[in-house]
Amino acid sequence: MLPRPPVYGCRNREFAVSGRHPAPSGHHDPRVDFPLVTRVLVKNLSALPDGPVTVSGWVDTVRDQKKVQFVILRDESGAVQIVNPALRELPEEAAEGDAARLATTEAISALSHGSFITVTGELKKDERVKLGGLEVKLATLDVVSAANPEAPIAADSSLDKRMDWRFLDLRQPKQALIFRIQTTFLHALRSYWVENDFVEIHTPKLMASASESRAELFEVEYFDGKAYLSQSPQFFKQMAQPAGFGKVFEVGPAFRADPSFTSRHATEFTSVDAEVSWIESHDDVMKLHEELMVAGFTAVKAKHGAEIQELFGIEIEVPAVPFPRIPLAEAKQIVADRGYVIPRADDDMDPEGERQIAAYVKETYGHDFVFLTDYASSIRPFYHMRREDDETITNSYDLIYNGTEISTGAQREHRIDVLVEQAKDKGLDPEELGFYLDFFRYGVPPHGGFGMGLARVLMLMLGESSIRETTYLFRGPTRLLP
Amino acid sequence: MLPRPPVYGCRNREFAVSGRHPAPSGHHDPRVDFPLVTRVLVKNLSALPDGPVTVSGWVDTVRDQKKVQFVILRDESGAVQIVNPALRELPEEAAEGDAARLATTEAISALSHGSFITVTGELKKDERVKLGGLEVKLATLDVVSAANPEAPIAADSSLDKRMDWRFLDLRQPKQALIFRIQTTFLHALRSYWVENDFVEIHTPKLMASASESRAELFEVEYFDGKAYLSQSPQFFKQMAQPAGFGKVFEVGPAFRADPSFTSRHATEFTSVDAEVSWIESHDDVMKLHEELMVAGFTAVKAKHGAEIQELFGIEIEVPAVPFPRIPLAEAKQIVADRGYVIPRADDDMDPEGERQIAAYVKETYGHDFVFLTDYASSIRPFYHMRREDDETITNSYDLIYNGTEISTGAQREHRIDVLVEQAKDKGLDPEELGFYLDFFRYGVPPHGGFGMGLARVLMLMLGESSIRETTYLFRGPTRLLP
Repeated sequence: MLPRPPVYGCRNREFAVSGRHPAPSGHHDPRVDFPLVTRVLVKNLSALPDGPVTVSGWVDTVRDQKKVQFVILRDESGAVQIVNPALRELPEEAAEGDAARLATTEAISALSHGSFITVTGELKKDERVKLGGLEVKLATLDVVSAANPEAPIAADSSLDKRMDWRFLDLRQPKQALIFRIQTTFLHALRSYWVENDFVEIHTPKLMASASESRAELFEVEYFDGKAYLSQSPQFFKQMAQPAGFGKVFEVGPAFRADPSFTSRHATEFTSVDAEVSWIESHDDVMKLHEELMVAGFTAVKAKHGAEIQELFGIEIEVPAVPFPRIPLAEAKQIVADRGYVIPRADDDMDPEGERQIAAYVKETYGHDFVFLTDYASSIRPFYHMRREDDETITNSYDLIYNGTEISTGAQREHRIDVLVEQAKDKGLDPEELGFYLDFFRYGVPPHGGFGMGLARVLMLMLGESSIRETTYLFRGPTRLLP
Repeated sequence: MLPRPPVYGCRNREFAVSGRHPAPSGHHDPRVDFPLVTRVLVKNLSALPDGPVTVSGWVDTVRDQKKVQFVILRDESGAVQIVNPALRELPEEAAEGDAARLATTEAISALSHGSFITVTGELKKDERVKLGGLEVKLATLDVVSAANPEAPIAADSSLDKRMDWRFLDLRQPKQALIFRIQTTFLHALRSYWVENDFVEIHTPKLMASASESRAELFEVEYFDGKAYLSQSPQFFKQMAQPAGFGKVFEVGPAFRADPSFTSRHATEFTSVDAEVSWIESHDDVMKLHEELMVAGFTAVKAKHGAEIQELFGIEIEVPAVPFPRIPLAEAKQIVADRGYVIPRADDDMDPEGERQIAAYVKETYGHDFVFLTDYASSIRPFYHMRREDDETITNSYDLIYNGTEISTGAQREHRIDVLVEQAKDKGLDPEELGFYLDFFRYGVPPHGGFGMGLARVLMLMLGESSIRETTYLFRGPTRLLP
């Protein structure tokens, strides 16, 4: 029997959550928050009996009345009212503790908005208190980190200004909720993938050449040469197919040197990707895709439905499967019949066309999603498989959600000779694509997949007007800070 | 009641896994693999009754005997023997189907290694068959994608050569297993985080300045200016603390323009990061860290323990908590007492020192992990908090696993005045760090976290000699392809 290992430098206190491995099922003592023993999350207060508690968070508001002071303390889980009977001056015959009470009163009066504090006190349920029916009567106050009193933004500051001070902007419960929703959504997708034997891959973001269009490519100084930032994991998630991985997924950054300033574009975005072997057509990809969306929306509704209703005024709906599927030519006819002429020379939809077809689908089928299928080869990348009976059409789709495109999916061309022809057809140099084309020379199963913009899904789910709101730190042509 | 939405272009067949949302619990009909109805994964064959099956995969080996042909077909789940009675020439009085049998025989004779095929046939359990005690008697063969007969690598090719043809290298069951282990490991970590209310963030990889050292920074042409690739999510995971997120995690790429060619370094790697508010010291971070490792190793052992034993000859051990913790000064004394003098002028350990202390810990406590704590301020970044009683020491640690560093963690300095001094002390320009320093001016809780190299964990877990083996596509100073 070996001796117990040394645990140098440990503080002499019980670590409440230790010994809970493997990963606990989410139930733990509400009096503690990981990793601290002493801090209680605000959302857990209502489950506690009246008595001593410690809460930590930031100062949301102070009401400094003559006889009593109120502080609304907020943490990542909610807000609670702290109450303190003020002692404004020392009585002539001061009792023990009066000096401390005076100091606390003055400290509260001096509290700046946003300062981080720890409060110990007595939890008391009181249904007259609007905020959660409880309050904490303050015993001690520790101002852990005082905020500059001049806040640089307010709730009604411009979007750009709020982006400048994103870390303060994110303190708003509505903004913070977006990222909790994102966490839940992605975990549902990943759980689906893992349960269905998908393999997670991390494709390189440094590449020797473009994966999509040379026009939107960022160039990197790479020692004595050049590298390029990956515009999508396309080539490398396809590589997993001849590698025999079968089914793969990745959630990671993608980069586009796109100078546009729309509410839907960014130079860096989180791409949600899947690619699967042995499909028979893009229809299999759509089936995977809609099942994933259902898994994600089901989890979000279950965990955050009430909060989303409260803060965004939106009722999350789990979409029914199958999602409607409409070939693009038919969609354009439907849009034209509604009186909208798409002002484009190519065969693509435009954003207003997407809104129109989405409105039609909503009116006709009550559905928020629609797969537009059968896009023209002329507007799709060379690696999309073309239809056997009509090579002007690809085995591809866009997924439209609430009127905006969130994803493109397709069956890929896996026949090397056809693929080379299609690359040439697009004016690409097979030489430069050599490493990619090699993937198809040593056996490769038929395959397909999709890439989806995470921030767009969240923007449309929550009725936000820009992906800037649903991106942790937006990057655009003129924004690299913070 | 709205009409059912149109499902244009669907093939007229049942989609077996449709309607399984929300994410199913992992049990599904073994006769089908997602998303195809017809394909059976090899690992599921043994659960099926004898009878007709369809399998798809690539050709592992062909034994083309005169009277009978054997093909070992491999897919992502395993390998199965296909058997075909050969018909070498048409009999004079050919029966119906003989022409097809002859064609099949010739097709098998011509099969190149690595070609992707679909086989239908009769599954038959036969315990004399070494490979899984079953075989499939071939009825039809579809060569979906023929491989070039000249394979560019063999199992014993050099590592560099194998990297050139990574998609073929990854077909080896051992290599493929690494990424299934990675999937399981990460899902266990993420499940732990989600169950403990962590928020997932995606920090930008395009930055306006360095986050770690200017020496190892990749520069990007960014429209009319410059951007830099993120060396770690450090600044932005810290940003989540004044933002009030409480606890965050990220698994994403990090970039280092490091010209070294060791087995432990890459220019792009997957970093596993967590950062939590309201810690009391780096000890809380270590507690989080060791619980995560336990969650990850527990899941890997449960799901892949037998396969790892078989393919790597390694018994996965779930580490006991707490992991040993040894202050660096003491560790150096222990190493010196073992007769190894660390040949470094600074206060750091070197790789051999790490191996020595790990050997000591293994011999003394039977543990594969050790936290080395209390690193000198001189060798730690400016944002590490220094000890209150001795500012030459930081509240930080390295986690050593099987003799190699896999992670650095620390409590961060959150007091703006101290932080500015520490930055200056390191020769940094507070001006350039302005956006980061702002995070600390409007209130911030005490916090800390760690960053961990995923490929290193896998390398050390599986006894591999290089992170090139445990990275999907390695990137180094002279490697950007494939």
